[in-house]
Amino acid sequence: MEGKKVRESQVVLAQQMNPQDANPAGNVHGGVIMKMIDTAAGVAAIRHSRSNAVTASVDRLDFYHPVFVGNLLSLRASVNFVGKTSMEVGVRVESENLLTGERLHTSTAYLTYVALDDQGRPLWLPPLILETETQKRRHQEAQTRRRMRLAEKTHEKSCQRDQEV
Amino acid sequence: MEGKKVRESQVVLAQQMNPQDANPAGNVHGGVIMKMIDTAAGVAAIRHSRSNAVTASVDRLDFYHPVFVGNLLSLRASVNFVGKTSMEVGVRVESENLLTGERLHTSTAYLTYVALDDQGRPLWLPPLILETETQKRRHQEAQTRRRMRLAEKTHEKSCQRDQEV
Amino acid sequence: MEGKKVRESQVVLAQQMNPQDANPAGNVHGGVIMKMIDTAAGVAAIRHSRSNAVTASVDRLDFYHPVFVGNLLSLRASVNFVGKTSMEVGVRVESENLLTGERLHTSTAYLTYVALDDQGRPLWLPPLILETETQKRRHQEAQTRRRMRLAEKTHEKSCQRDQEV
Amino acid sequence: MEGKKVRESQVVLAQQMNPQDANPAGNVHGGVIMKMIDTAAGVAAIRHSRSNAVTASVDRLDFYHPVFVGNLLSLRASVNFVGKTSMEVGVRVESENLLTGERLHTSTAYLTYVALDDQGRPLWLPPLILETETQKRRHQEAQTRRRMRLAEKTHEKSCQRDQEV
Amino acid sequence: MEGKKVRESQVVLAQQMNPQDANPAGNVHGGVIMKMIDTAAGVAAIRHSRSNAVTASVDRLDFYHPVFVGNLLSLRASVNFVGKTSMEVGVRVESENLLTGERLHTSTAYLTYVALDDQGRPLWLPPLILETETQKRRHQEAQTRRRMRLAEKTHEKSCQRDQEV
Amino acid sequence: MEGKKVRESQVVLAQQMNPQDANPAGNVHGGVIMKMIDTAAGVAAIRHSRSNAVTASVDRLDFYHPVFVGNLLSLRASVNFVGKTSMEVGVRVESENLLTGERLHTSTAYLTYVALDDQGRPLWLPPLILETETQKRRHQEAQTRRRMRLAEKTHEKSCQRDQEV
Repeated sequence: MEGKKVRESQVVLAQQMNPQDANPAGNVHGGVIMKMIDTAAGVAAIRHSRSNAVTASVDRLDFYHPVFVGNLLSLRASVNFVGKTSMEVGVRVESENLLTGERLHTSTAYLTYVALDDQGRPLWLPPLILETETQKRRHQEAQTRRRMRLAEKTHEKSCQRDQEV
Repeated sequence: MEGKKVRESQVVLAQQMNPQDANPAGNVHGGVIMKMIDTAAGVAAIRHSRSNAVTASVDRLDFYHPVFVGNLLSLRASVNFVGKTSMEVGVRVESENLLTGERLHTSTAYLTYVALDDQGRPLWLPPLILETETQKRRHQEAQTRRRMRLAEKTHEKSCQRDQEV
Repeated sequence: MEGKKVRESQVVLAQQMNPQDANPAGNVHGGVIMKMIDTAAGVAAIRHSRSNAVTASVDRLDFYHPVFVGNLLSLRASVNFVGKTSMEVGVRVESENLLTGERLHTSTAYLTYVALDDQGRPLWLPPLILETETQKRRHQEAQTRRRMRLAEKTHEKSCQRDQEV
Repeated sequence: MEGKKVRESQVVLAQQMNPQDANPAGNVHGGVIMKMIDTAAGVAAIRHSRSNAVTASVDRLDFYHPVFVGNLLSLRASVNFVGKTSMEVGVRVESENLLTGERLHTSTAYLTYVALDDQGRPLWLPPLILETETQKRRHQEAQTRRRMRLAEKTHEKSCQRDQEV
Repeated sequence: MEGKKVRESQVVLAQQMNPQDANPAGNVHGGVIMKMIDTAAGVAAIRHSRSNAVTASVDRLDFYHPVFVGNLLSLRASVNFVGKTSMEVGVRVESENLLTGERLHTSTAYLTYVALDDQGRPLWLPPLILETETQKRRHQEAQTRRRMRLAEKTHEKSCQRDQEV
Repeated sequence: MEGKKVRESQVVLAQQMNPQDANPAGNVHGGVIMKMIDTAAGVAAIRHSRSNAVTASVDRLDFYHPVFVGNLLSLRASVNFVGKTSMEVGVRVESENLLTGERLHTSTAYLTYVALDDQGRPLWLPPLILETETQKRRHQEAQTRRRMRLAEKTHEKSCQRDQEV
């Protein structure tokens, strides 16, 4: 299968936050941002695989600052690593206060997607072509996260069984 | 400060999935489930702290099965670990096919919350009182995840700077 | 047909109220609560019949207290009475102020559902097995409400024709 | 206080039903219709009282036909009866299949509203001026329903205590 | 084909504005009003053609006053002009402050719709029967707007190519 | 007042279309696209004025192709012309079929915004600095549209009075 460059699937989603996106405290709901992160990462994953890609996991998602109603939220997603049937997508979230122009890096996330065929079976993915130093470093960091996840999995196995209230 | 028992903050949120919760493929949108997970975990965190608790991170979130429109989604959240100003909440997501009664464990997630006072400063949290063997094991596993997160943080620091498309 | 116990179809739905659920006065919109009541009762009705159950009527729905944005709303629905093709479901709504823990019984409702087959024809329902004194009393009260509804129907017949502005 | 005519507060709300209004079976969600009924009746109540009127109860709500996505839903609300601090509003719901022009009377509902002042205390309402034979008949029927409700209340008192799963 | 009278397709849509309809400044979002205008005009177009009518263009839409949360918004749409396969629909938007009864004309819009058959090809439309002086004047004004639009089109052609950032 | 370059306020909003954005025919609702166009243009207007900019009018909005659920919609908005207190913003809408990569130019729109101060009075705007040939041509075309709008206004005056059903 022919490879695909990182920038062929990179995407920037952007939306202005409205009162309907707020949580009871009046800031933008963390869950609303999570949904936008999942959408941005999903678009990059679908573009890389040109197939129905589904979210397998959120490997890490950090919130650094609250987001406010009226802010412009921009989410840049790019594929960091591609395995046989799964890929890691990184998302960087920035908010802009439109009245002052101030921009903040509010969130970073790493998610794993699997591409499925019409019968819901995993598809083989086109390999990722790395072009820049940044892409190469991110690729390496994604591999490190992956190894740590596999290590964690052993622990998790028992936990999953138990998270029953 | 007086401690609080795990079961005092445990909560089960439940909702039926409607067409408006679907993704373009017709299943329930992963982002919709993430938002519900964040809400369930947030309710447990607010109950434990009886203050405005905000999402600091999603430490791990795994999807095992797709969820379908019409399914009843139940999310059981309980506080696993409480540090000085942050706490880990675990969420177990189950779907029920209401026409057949079949239930599936579709997702497990671990999130970290910080409780804030009126000025947005972190609040000291009441310690967690563990009563059962399950609660004790989960507490230990949460501590393990925490140590691994702190180790990962060193790596992440450089990554965050870079996730710029 | 084999009978079903009340607790086999009982359900608790719960959701946190967000700003998007508010009415223009800033409290939770009565219509939002009605929709959640209909959903909770509908889930109990589908579970009892394991078929597509549709709302035939709201027989009574009382609001005792306003609900506020940020409250956790819990709706407990249970089948009170089962006739040949229709069943009465009772719903008890409670709100919890998550910051103080104060809980209020904010609403009670009784609704009637009919289960339909694939052609939209009413289905015969499994009889209801009553196990506790509470279930028996509710069953009797549901029968009383039913008799009164049938009596009212004679009056209603003429009214319905007329509610044309 | 000066009286107000029925037609001064009568209102017709109308909306086209979209896929986001559907239930899992693909028809319009009963809860969506309930919310629109509450809104229509509430507008008539606010117009009659020119104050913040809140829903006290749904006294009766009957569904005669399913409503489909794409239908135009029209809700005609008019005040039927005004007591000292509460009023009954009747709502007639009609659907129109816009492609064929076929119209159906899909629902009738009777709701009670209470007008509140800025401190949330009930306000005295302007008396209702009846002008037509239809208005007079509806007024009488509303009084009948009211008497039956008061009779039912005695029964309900005990039920409410019990609708705890 | 038989003609249709203007009043056969005229429609009034009405809805109360809720907090979820607000923009970050707290007023009703202009885009929410645009969506309601498109819906009202679309219903008139579908009624005139009794077919799937789609929006071809917004020819003009003016906002005169802000709309506030809690206002009742009424949109009156009527077909002004019918060509072979396209029709112009005019919409007048009024807001009512329900607490004071004050009404304002907040917006006027003119939109063009095309009716499509099952294969997505334009359908011939029934001619428009004008009955009143107002309808005749609007018809003439619609023709003037149409001529100006065709003149503008020459200019627009080049612009459309260019509106690429 | 210091001038601002076109590219300082240019913005690209992008969102994936979900089933909740569909119209009854199953395509994306024209009104949903209008709302996104208004948001994109509004963000450019707020950025140019760094103040609360409100929509004065949609001067022209053309739909060339339907948009489908699952498509990625990208809206590029840029300020074309700035008068004393009002500015024209042009928006180009493109859809991308994520499974095939096919992109279509689906819509072009021109809207006018007015910037308001805290008391709701129009604010003087920073002049627009044109840097490229494209920006100069668009600026000229915007001026032509403006002249035509002013000419149309005379006609419109009478029409607005009349668009009462």
